[in-house]
Amino acid sequence: MSDSGSAPWWVVVTGASQGFGAAICTELAPLLPPGSRMLGLARSQQGLATTAAAVTKANPAVTFSPVVMDLATAKAVDYEAALEDNLGTSQSSPPGQALLFQNAGSLGSLKYLREMDDAAHLSAYFNLNISSVILLNAAFMRLISAVSGKVKVKIINISSICALEPFKSWGLYCTSKAGRDMLFRVLAAEDPGVRVLNYSPGPLDTGMQVK
Amino acid sequence: MSDSGSAPWWVVVTGASQGFGAAICTELAPLLPPGSRMLGLARSQQGLATTAAAVTKANPAVTFSPVVMDLATAKAVDYEAALEDNLGTSQSSPPGQALLFQNAGSLGSLKYLREMDDAAHLSAYFNLNISSVILLNAAFMRLISAVSGKVKVKIINISSICALEPFKSWGLYCTSKAGRDMLFRVLAAEDPGVRVLNYSPGPLDTGMQVK
Repeated sequence: MSDSGSAPWWVVVTGASQGFGAAICTELAPLLPPGSRMLGLARSQQGLATTAAAVTKANPAVTFSPVVMDLATAKAVDYEAALEDNLGTSQSSPPGQALLFQNAGSLGSLKYLREMDDAAHLSAYFNLNISSVILLNAAFMRLISAVSGKVKVKIINISSICALEPFKSWGLYCTSKAGRDMLFRVLAAEDPGVRVLNYSPGPLDTGMQVK
Repeated sequence: MSDSGSAPWWVVVTGASQGFGAAICTELAPLLPPGSRMLGLARSQQGLATTAAAVTKANPAVTFSPVVMDLATAKAVDYEAALEDNLGTSQSSPPGQALLFQNAGSLGSLKYLREMDDAAHLSAYFNLNISSVILLNAAFMRLISAVSGKVKVKIINISSICALEPFKSWGLYCTSKAGRDMLFRVLAAEDPGVRVLNYSPGPLDTGMQVK
Protein backbone atom coordinates (compact mmCIF):
# COMPACT_ATOMS: atom_id res chain seq x y z
CA MET A 1 0.00 0.00 0.00
CA SER A 2 1.41 3.31 -1.04
CA ASP A 3 2.34 5.99 1.42
CA SER A 4 0.13 8.96 0.76
CA GLY A 5 3.22 11.14 0.96
CA SER A 6 4.54 9.68 -2.29
CA ALA A 7 1.27 8.57 -3.86
CA PRO A 8 0.61 10.02 -7.31
CA TRP A 9 -1.26 13.30 -7.50
CA TRP A 10 -4.29 14.17 -9.56
CA VAL A 11 -4.19 17.62 -11.10
CA VAL A 12 -6.86 19.35 -13.19
CA VAL A 13 -6.20 22.60 -15.05
CA THR A 14 -8.77 24.53 -17.10
CA GLY A 15 -7.62 26.70 -19.96
CA ALA A 16 -4.56 24.42 -20.21
CA SER A 17 -3.95 25.00 -23.91
CA GLN A 18 -2.19 28.35 -23.61
CA GLY A 19 -0.96 31.16 -21.43
CA PHE A 20 -1.09 30.81 -17.67
CA GLY A 21 -2.91 27.46 -17.74
CA ALA A 22 -0.20 25.91 -19.90
CA ALA A 23 2.45 27.40 -17.62
CA ILE A 24 0.81 25.86 -14.54
CA CYS A 25 0.94 22.42 -16.18
CA THR A 26 4.55 22.73 -17.29
CA GLU A 27 5.88 24.22 -14.07
CA LEU A 28 4.00 21.84 -11.82
CA ALA A 29 4.93 18.66 -13.68
CA PRO A 30 8.53 18.31 -12.34
CA LEU A 31 7.22 18.54 -8.77
CA LEU A 32 4.80 15.61 -9.07
CA PRO A 33 5.42 12.04 -7.84
CA PRO A 34 5.78 9.35 -10.54
CA GLY A 35 2.47 8.07 -11.85
CA SER A 36 0.71 11.39 -11.30
CA ARG A 37 -2.10 12.27 -13.67
CA MET A 38 -2.78 15.69 -15.09
CA LEU A 39 -6.01 16.56 -16.88
CA GLY A 40 -6.04 19.62 -19.12
CA LEU A 41 -9.34 21.09 -20.29
CA ALA A 42 -9.55 23.59 -23.12
CA ARG A 43 -11.15 24.26 -26.49
CA SER A 44 -7.97 24.00 -28.55
CA GLN A 45 -6.84 20.50 -29.41
CA GLN A 46 -3.63 21.85 -30.89
CA GLY A 47 -2.85 23.94 -27.83
CA LEU A 48 -3.47 21.00 -25.53
CA ALA A 49 -1.11 18.86 -27.64
CA THR A 50 1.60 21.48 -27.18
CA THR A 51 1.02 21.50 -23.43
CA ALA A 52 1.07 17.69 -23.36
CA ALA A 53 4.44 17.62 -25.08
CA ALA A 54 5.85 20.20 -22.67
CA VAL A 55 4.59 18.28 -19.63
CA THR A 56 6.05 15.00 -20.91
CA LYS A 57 9.37 16.71 -21.52
CA ALA A 58 9.32 18.26 -18.04
CA ASN A 59 8.46 14.96 -16.35
CA PRO A 60 8.03 11.76 -18.37
CA ALA A 61 6.58 10.03 -15.30
CA VAL A 62 3.47 12.24 -15.43
CA THR A 63 0.53 11.41 -17.71
CA PHE A 64 -1.12 14.42 -19.31
CA SER A 65 -4.65 13.85 -20.62
CA PRO A 66 -5.98 16.48 -23.01
CA VAL A 67 -9.76 16.91 -23.07
CA VAL A 68 -11.21 19.22 -25.69
CA MET A 69 -14.26 20.88 -24.18
CA ASP A 70 -16.11 24.19 -24.41
CA LEU A 71 -16.68 25.11 -20.78
CA ALA A 72 -19.41 27.57 -21.78
CA THR A 73 -21.69 24.71 -22.83
CA ALA A 74 -20.46 21.70 -20.82
CA LYS A 75 -22.83 19.94 -18.42
CA ALA A 76 -22.12 18.18 -15.12
CA VAL A 77 -22.02 14.80 -16.89
CA ASP A 78 -19.31 16.08 -19.22
CA TYR A 79 -17.12 17.09 -16.31
CA GLU A 80 -17.81 13.83 -14.49
CA ALA A 81 -16.88 11.80 -17.55
CA ALA A 82 -13.67 13.76 -18.12
CA LEU A 83 -12.60 13.28 -14.51
CA GLU A 84 -13.51 9.60 -14.27
CA ASP A 85 -12.06 8.65 -17.63
CA ASN A 86 -8.74 10.39 -17.06
CA LEU A 87 -8.08 10.53 -13.32
CA GLY A 88 -9.87 7.79 -11.46
CA THR A 89 -13.07 6.29 -10.17
CA SER A 90 -14.32 5.08 -6.82
CA GLN A 91 -12.32 1.89 -7.50
CA SER A 92 -9.05 3.77 -7.95
CA SER A 93 -6.31 4.07 -5.38
CA PRO A 94 -6.67 7.45 -3.72
CA PRO A 95 -4.20 10.09 -4.86
CA GLY A 96 -1.77 11.69 -2.46
CA GLN A 97 -3.19 15.07 -3.32
CA ALA A 98 -5.89 16.34 -5.65
CA LEU A 99 -5.50 19.81 -7.14
CA LEU A 100 -7.91 21.75 -9.30
CA PHE A 101 -6.79 24.98 -10.96
CA GLN A 102 -9.76 27.04 -12.15
CA ASN A 103 -7.82 29.10 -14.63
CA ALA A 104 -10.05 29.39 -17.71
CA GLY A 105 -11.78 32.67 -18.30
CA SER A 106 -12.32 35.28 -20.95
CA LEU A 107 -12.45 39.05 -21.09
CA GLY A 108 -15.70 39.10 -23.01
CA SER A 109 -17.02 42.24 -24.65
CA LEU A 110 -14.94 45.33 -23.94
CA LYS A 111 -17.84 47.70 -24.63
CA TYR A 112 -18.80 50.17 -21.95
CA LEU A 113 -21.71 48.87 -19.90
CA ARG A 114 -24.12 51.44 -21.37
CA GLU A 115 -23.58 49.85 -24.79
CA MET A 116 -24.22 46.25 -23.80
CA ASP A 117 -27.15 44.79 -25.73
CA ASP A 118 -26.27 41.18 -26.54
CA ALA A 119 -28.11 38.81 -24.21
CA ALA A 120 -26.61 35.72 -25.87
CA HIS A 121 -23.09 37.00 -25.31
CA LEU A 122 -23.79 37.75 -21.67
CA SER A 123 -25.31 34.34 -21.09
CA ALA A 124 -22.39 32.51 -22.71
CA TYR A 125 -19.96 34.73 -20.84
CA PHE A 126 -21.28 33.92 -17.38
CA ASN A 127 -21.74 30.26 -18.32
CA LEU A 128 -18.01 30.11 -19.00
CA ASN A 129 -16.65 32.43 -16.35
CA ILE A 130 -18.86 31.47 -13.40
CA SER A 131 -21.19 28.51 -14.01
CA SER A 132 -18.51 26.23 -15.45
CA VAL A 133 -16.44 26.84 -12.34
CA ILE A 134 -19.33 25.80 -10.11
CA LEU A 135 -20.04 22.63 -12.11
CA LEU A 136 -16.41 21.49 -12.30
CA ASN A 137 -15.73 22.27 -8.64
CA ALA A 138 -18.71 20.13 -7.69
CA ALA A 139 -17.82 17.23 -10.01
CA PHE A 140 -14.24 17.29 -8.72
CA MET A 141 -15.33 17.24 -5.08
CA ARG A 142 -17.80 14.44 -5.72
CA LEU A 143 -15.10 12.36 -7.43
CA ILE A 144 -12.73 12.81 -4.51
CA SER A 145 -15.48 11.97 -2.03
CA ALA A 146 -16.05 8.70 -3.89
CA VAL A 147 -12.39 7.70 -3.58
CA SER A 148 -11.56 5.91 -0.36
CA GLY A 149 -8.77 7.31 1.75
CA LYS A 150 -7.91 10.71 3.11
CA VAL A 151 -7.11 12.89 0.14
CA LYS A 152 -5.78 16.40 0.50
CA VAL A 153 -7.87 18.53 -1.84
CA LYS A 154 -6.82 21.96 -3.00
CA ILE A 155 -8.93 24.13 -5.31
CA ILE A 156 -7.29 27.24 -6.72
CA ASN A 157 -9.19 30.08 -8.35
CA ILE A 158 -7.06 32.13 -10.70
CA SER A 159 -8.25 35.56 -9.77
CA SER A 160 -7.33 39.09 -10.76
CA ILE A 161 -7.04 42.62 -9.47
CA CYS A 162 -10.28 43.02 -11.45
CA ALA A 163 -12.03 41.08 -8.68
CA LEU A 164 -11.21 43.92 -6.31
CA GLU A 165 -11.06 47.09 -8.39
CA PRO A 166 -13.28 48.36 -11.21
CA PHE A 167 -11.76 49.04 -14.62
CA LYS A 168 -13.53 50.90 -17.41
CA SER A 169 -14.63 48.69 -20.34
CA TRP A 170 -13.80 45.52 -18.38
CA GLY A 171 -17.27 45.30 -16.85
CA LEU A 172 -17.88 41.65 -17.60
CA TYR A 173 -14.42 40.55 -16.50
CA CYS A 174 -14.56 42.54 -13.25
CA THR A 175 -18.06 41.27 -12.49
CA SER A 176 -17.19 37.62 -13.09
CA LYS A 177 -13.92 37.80 -11.19
CA ALA A 178 -15.56 39.47 -8.18
CA GLY A 179 -18.31 36.86 -8.27
CA ARG A 180 -15.79 34.01 -8.49
CA ASP A 181 -13.81 35.28 -5.53
CA MET A 182 -16.98 35.22 -3.45
CA LEU A 183 -17.89 31.79 -4.83
CA PHE A 184 -14.64 30.38 -3.51
CA ARG A 185 -15.13 32.09 -0.16
CA VAL A 186 -18.47 30.32 0.15
CA LEU A 187 -16.81 27.05 -0.84
CA ALA A 188 -14.18 27.52 1.87
CA ALA A 189 -16.92 28.16 4.43
CA GLU A 190 -18.92 25.12 3.36
CA ASP A 191 -16.03 22.66 3.21
CA PRO A 192 -13.27 23.49 5.70
CA GLY A 193 -11.47 20.25 4.74
CA VAL A 194 -10.82 21.61 1.26
CA ARG A 195 -7.99 24.09 0.88
CA VAL A 196 -9.34 26.98 -1.18
CA LEU A 197 -7.19 29.74 -2.64
CA ASN A 198 -8.13 32.88 -4.55
CA TYR A 199 -4.82 33.52 -6.28
CA SER A 200 -4.17 36.67 -8.28
CA PRO A 201 -0.96 36.26 -10.27
CA GLY A 202 -0.60 39.90 -11.29
CA PRO A 203 -0.22 41.16 -14.86
CA LEU A 204 0.71 38.40 -17.30
CA ASP A 205 2.10 38.64 -20.78
CA THR A 206 -0.41 36.20 -22.30
CA GLY A 207 -2.77 36.19 -25.24
CA MET A 208 -5.45 37.85 -23.11
CA GLN A 209 -3.44 41.06 -22.94
CA VAL A 210 -3.29 41.30 -26.71
CA LYS A 211 -7.04 41.92 -27.02
CA MET B 1 -41.28 74.93 -20.78
CA SER B 2 -41.13 73.02 -17.56
CA ASP B 3 -38.63 73.74 -14.84
CA SER B 4 -36.54 70.60 -14.38
CA GLY B 5 -36.95 70.99 -10.62
CA SER B 6 -40.64 70.16 -10.86
CA ALA B 7 -40.62 68.19 -14.11
CA PRO B 8 -42.11 64.70 -13.81
CA TRP B 9 -39.78 61.89 -12.89
CA TRP B 10 -39.30 58.55 -14.61
CA VAL B 11 -38.85 55.63 -12.26
CA VAL B 12 -38.18 51.98 -13.12
CA VAL B 13 -38.35 49.21 -10.53
CA THR B 14 -37.61 45.53 -11.17
CA GLY B 15 -39.26 42.89 -9.02
CA ALA B 16 -42.05 45.41 -8.41
CA SER B 17 -44.78 42.82 -7.80
CA GLN B 18 -43.89 42.01 -4.20
CA GLY B 19 -41.62 42.53 -1.23
CA PHE B 20 -39.03 45.27 -1.32
CA GLY B 21 -39.72 46.19 -4.96
CA ALA B 22 -43.39 46.85 -4.22
CA ALA B 23 -42.39 48.84 -1.13
CA ILE B 24 -40.05 51.02 -3.18
CA CYS B 25 -42.90 51.88 -5.56
CA THR B 26 -45.41 52.62 -2.83
CA GLU B 27 -43.07 54.64 -0.62
CA LEU B 28 -41.59 56.63 -3.49
CA ALA B 29 -44.91 57.55 -5.13
CA PRO B 30 -45.93 60.33 -2.70
CA LEU B 31 -42.57 62.06 -3.25
CA LEU B 32 -42.94 62.35 -7.03
CA PRO B 33 -44.02 65.45 -8.97
CA PRO B 34 -47.39 65.26 -10.74
CA GLY B 35 -47.26 63.49 -14.10
CA SER B 36 -44.40 61.24 -13.04
CA ARG B 37 -44.26 57.80 -14.61
CA MET B 38 -43.36 54.62 -12.83
CA LEU B 39 -42.60 51.39 -14.66
CA GLY B 40 -42.75 48.13 -12.71
CA LEU B 41 -41.23 44.97 -14.17
CA ALA B 42 -42.00 41.53 -12.75
CA ARG B 43 -43.30 38.09 -13.68
CA SER B 44 -46.53 38.31 -11.69
CA GLN B 45 -49.39 40.20 -13.35
CA GLN B 46 -51.46 39.92 -10.19
CA GLY B 47 -48.65 41.22 -8.00
CA LEU B 48 -48.06 44.15 -10.32
CA ALA B 49 -51.80 44.99 -10.25
CA THR B 50 -51.63 45.13 -6.45
CA THR B 51 -48.61 47.43 -6.61
CA ALA B 52 -50.35 49.61 -9.21
CA ALA B 53 -53.36 50.03 -6.92
CA ALA B 54 -51.13 50.92 -3.98
CA VAL B 55 -49.21 53.50 -6.02
CA THR B 56 -52.38 55.10 -7.32
CA LYS B 57 -53.72 55.29 -3.78
CA ALA B 58 -50.47 56.82 -2.52
CA ASN B 59 -50.36 59.41 -5.31
CA PRO B 60 -53.08 59.57 -7.96
CA ALA B 61 -50.93 61.97 -10.00
CA VAL B 62 -48.42 59.21 -10.72
CA THR B 63 -48.95 56.73 -13.56
CA PHE B 64 -47.83 53.19 -12.78
CA SER B 65 -47.26 50.94 -15.81
CA PRO B 66 -47.06 47.21 -15.10
CA VAL B 67 -44.98 45.17 -17.52
CA VAL B 68 -45.03 41.40 -17.14
CA MET B 69 -41.62 40.10 -18.10
CA ASP B 70 -39.30 37.25 -17.16
CA LEU B 71 -35.96 38.98 -16.71
CA ALA B 72 -34.13 35.66 -17.05
CA THR B 73 -35.06 35.43 -20.73
CA ALA B 74 -35.65 39.06 -21.78
CA LYS B 75 -33.52 40.59 -24.55
CA ALA B 76 -32.31 44.15 -25.04
CA VAL B 77 -35.21 44.86 -27.41
CA ASP B 78 -37.70 43.81 -24.73
CA TYR B 79 -36.24 46.30 -22.26
CA GLU B 80 -36.09 49.02 -24.91
CA ALA B 81 -39.73 48.47 -25.83
CA ALA B 82 -40.87 48.49 -22.20
CA LEU B 83 -39.03 51.75 -21.54
CA GLU B 84 -40.09 53.52 -24.70
CA ASP B 85 -43.71 52.41 -24.54
CA ASN B 86 -44.20 53.40 -20.91
CA LEU B 87 -41.78 56.21 -20.11
CA GLY B 88 -40.81 58.16 -23.17
CA THR B 89 -38.93 58.37 -26.42
CA SER B 90 -36.43 60.76 -27.94
CA GLN B 91 -39.43 63.00 -28.76
CA SER B 92 -40.54 63.16 -25.13
CA SER B 93 -39.95 66.04 -22.76
CA PRO B 94 -36.98 65.16 -20.58
CA PRO B 95 -37.86 64.07 -17.05
CA GLY B 96 -36.63 65.99 -14.04
CA GLN B 97 -34.94 62.87 -12.79
CA ALA B 98 -34.65 59.30 -14.01
CA LEU B 99 -34.30 56.54 -11.41
CA LEU B 100 -33.72 52.84 -11.97
CA PHE B 101 -33.98 50.45 -9.04
CA GLN B 102 -32.36 47.07 -9.84
CA ASN B 103 -34.17 45.15 -7.17
CA ALA B 104 -35.14 41.82 -8.78
CA GLY B 105 -33.14 38.79 -7.79
CA SER B 106 -33.55 35.27 -6.55
CA LEU B 107 -31.81 33.04 -4.05
CA GLY B 108 -31.52 30.15 -6.48
CA SER B 109 -30.56 26.67 -5.37
CA LEU B 110 -29.66 26.43 -1.70
CA LYS B 111 -27.57 23.28 -2.20
CA TYR B 112 -24.00 23.30 -1.02
CA LEU B 113 -21.64 24.09 -3.89
CA ARG B 114 -20.26 20.54 -3.96
CA GLU B 115 -23.75 19.30 -4.88
CA MET B 116 -24.39 21.68 -7.77
CA ASP B 117 -24.97 19.78 -11.01
CA ASP B 118 -27.69 21.62 -12.92
CA ALA B 119 -26.17 23.68 -15.72
CA ALA B 120 -29.58 24.95 -16.88
CA HIS B 121 -30.40 26.28 -13.42
CA LEU B 122 -27.05 28.05 -13.17
CA SER B 123 -27.46 29.61 -16.59
CA ALA B 124 -30.97 30.87 -15.85
CA TYR B 125 -29.81 32.07 -12.43
CA PHE B 126 -27.04 34.30 -13.72
CA ASN B 127 -29.19 35.45 -16.64
CA LEU B 128 -31.65 36.81 -14.10
CA ASN B 129 -29.34 37.99 -11.36
CA ILE B 130 -26.54 39.53 -13.42
CA SER B 131 -27.17 39.64 -17.18
CA SER B 132 -30.65 41.17 -16.92
CA VAL B 133 -29.17 43.94 -14.80
CA ILE B 134 -26.57 44.72 -17.46
CA LEU B 135 -29.13 44.76 -20.28
CA LEU B 136 -31.66 46.95 -18.46
CA ASN B 137 -29.00 49.37 -17.21
CA ALA B 138 -27.80 49.80 -20.77
CA ALA B 139 -31.27 50.21 -22.26
CA PHE B 140 -32.14 52.75 -19.56
CA MET B 141 -28.98 54.77 -20.15
CA ARG B 142 -29.49 54.72 -23.92
CA LEU B 143 -33.07 55.96 -23.50
CA ILE B 144 -31.96 58.83 -21.30
CA SER B 145 -29.17 59.72 -23.73
CA ALA B 146 -31.75 59.98 -26.49
CA VAL B 147 -33.86 62.45 -24.54
CA SER B 148 -32.80 66.04 -24.95
CA GLY B 149 -32.06 68.02 -21.83
CA LYS B 150 -29.93 67.52 -18.77
CA VAL B 151 -31.45 64.62 -16.89
CA LYS B 152 -30.23 63.55 -13.47
CA VAL B 153 -29.85 59.78 -13.67
CA LYS B 154 -29.64 57.56 -10.62
CA ILE B 155 -29.21 53.79 -10.81
CA ILE B 156 -29.60 51.89 -7.56
CA ASN B 157 -28.49 48.28 -7.10
CA ILE B 158 -30.32 46.53 -4.28
CA SER B 159 -27.44 44.73 -2.71
CA SER B 160 -26.97 42.53 0.33
CA ILE B 161 -24.54 41.60 3.06
CA CYS B 162 -24.12 38.51 0.86
CA ALA B 163 -22.15 40.66 -1.56
CA LEU B 164 -19.53 41.12 1.14
CA GLU B 165 -19.62 38.00 3.30
CA PRO B 166 -19.92 34.31 2.39
CA PHE B 167 -22.83 32.29 3.73
CA LYS B 168 -23.07 28.51 3.57
CA SER B 169 -25.66 27.20 1.08
CA TRP B 170 -26.14 30.68 -0.38
CA GLY B 171 -23.37 30.24 -2.95
CA LEU B 172 -25.32 31.46 -5.95
CA TYR B 173 -26.79 34.44 -4.15
CA CYS B 174 -23.45 35.52 -2.67
CA THR B 175 -21.71 35.10 -6.03
CA SER B 176 -24.28 37.11 -7.95
CA LYS B 177 -24.51 39.86 -5.34
CA ALA B 178 -20.71 40.24 -5.19
CA GLY B 179 -20.60 40.34 -8.98
CA ARG B 180 -23.38 42.93 -9.13
CA ASP B 181 -21.65 45.20 -6.64
CA MET B 182 -18.55 45.17 -8.84
CA LEU B 183 -20.69 45.71 -11.95
CA PHE B 184 -22.07 48.92 -10.50
CA ARG B 185 -18.62 50.06 -9.43
CA VAL B 186 -17.50 49.69 -13.06
CA LEU B 187 -20.61 51.60 -14.18
CA ALA B 188 -19.76 54.42 -11.78
CA ALA B 189 -16.21 54.55 -13.16
CA GLU B 190 -17.39 54.57 -16.77
CA ASP B 191 -20.13 57.16 -16.38
CA PRO B 192 -19.34 59.72 -13.67
CA GLY B 193 -22.47 61.68 -14.65
CA VAL B 194 -24.69 58.83 -13.48
CA ARG B 195 -25.26 58.53 -9.75
CA VAL B 196 -24.70 54.88 -8.86
CA LEU B 197 -25.55 53.35 -5.51
CA ASN B 198 -24.99 49.84 -4.14
CA TYR B 199 -27.63 49.84 -1.43
CA SER B 200 -27.94 47.04 1.09
CA PRO B 201 -31.22 47.40 3.00
CA GLY B 202 -30.42 44.85 5.71
CA PRO B 203 -32.60 41.85 6.63
CA LEU B 204 -36.12 42.16 5.23
CA ASP B 205 -39.24 40.28 6.18
CA THR B 206 -40.19 39.39 2.60
CA GLY B 207 -41.12 36.25 0.69
CA MET B 208 -37.43 35.56 0.04
CA GLN B 209 -36.84 34.83 3.72
CA VAL B 210 -39.53 32.17 3.74
CA LYS B 211 -37.55 29.85 1.45
